[in-house]
Amino acid sequence: MARIDYVDDPNAPAANSVVPSVVAIVRDTDGRILLIHKTDNNLWALPGGGHEIGESIVDTVVREVQEETGYDVEVETITGTYTNPRHVMAYDDGEVRQQFSIAFRARLIGGEAQTSSESSEVVWVRPEEIEALDMHPSMRMRIQHALEERRAPYLG
Amino acid sequence: MARIDYVDDPNAPAANSVVPSVVAIVRDTDGRILLIHKTDNNLWALPGGGHEIGESIVDTVVREVQEETGYDVEVETITGTYTNPRHVMAYDDGEVRQQFSIAFRARLIGGEAQTSSESSEVVWVRPEEIEALDMHPSMRMRIQHALEERRAPYLG
Repeated sequence: MARIDYVDDPNAPAANSVVPSVVAIVRDTDGRILLIHKTDNNLWALPGGGHEIGESIVDTVVREVQEETGYDVEVETITGTYTNPRHVMAYDDGEVRQQFSIAFRARLIGGEAQTSSESSEVVWVRPEEIEALDMHPSMRMRIQHALEERRAPYLG
Repeated sequence: MARIDYVDDPNAPAANSVVPSVVAIVRDTDGRILLIHKTDNNLWALPGGGHEIGESIVDTVVREVQEETGYDVEVETITGTYTNPRHVMAYDDGEVRQQFSIAFRARLIGGEAQTSSESSEVVWVRPEEIEALDMHPSMRMRIQHALEERRAPYLG
């Protein structure tokens, strides 16, 4: 399903839904970050996705990372909340979702890289290589906040 | 609107909605905790409520505390997430909401105690007085976690 992000855009459509979502910051022993190439908007991103009824938010992180990357992770902590109401995502079925994302740091515990319908590439990227990748600014910000190792989660 | 909470109850109705919600832990200079007597389930609780489209999660905390207690607060940090899928809340309009709550510590910056349609009493309570109050165990847990001043938010 195609997706368009609008941030602080006066022409953005009005939000009609909120789905709590997650992203996961997973690093390997060399400090590289696990990224996917997303099929919905053709951008690079942290693995993640929407919460489903019947799971805890930690379950969501574990499931989405597994589905999109093939890796198994264990959730460690929250690195930030991203709930700017002026960031909406329009899908081609008419849903306009207000951003409501929670970013988690997670630890790799197993699995092997595997692509999916949502992720055409699964890669480990050194932090200094990220700037050159085509990535939404809101995703860059989540990575930046996680790398800063703040004492308390970013609240946005 | 009446509300019944079910936790780990095999007879609980199946959830049909998720609404991100918040509670706020606000303490005065004597360390007392701001509590309300809720009209929907007749229990004592932290102020809080559901996120609305168009606001950030921090906006939700500020608005709900203002509406239910009359006080103005500034959000400081997250003390925990509470997303146990085996905790559902049934409302008398047929909505069965899976718990999806985020607890925040917030700082008192102004206002005066004021009740509302959702809160018949607004009080400051010393931590050791809380055990004697009629309160849902899941609310007691949020207060306990906040008082522990954990280095990282509780993830549940």
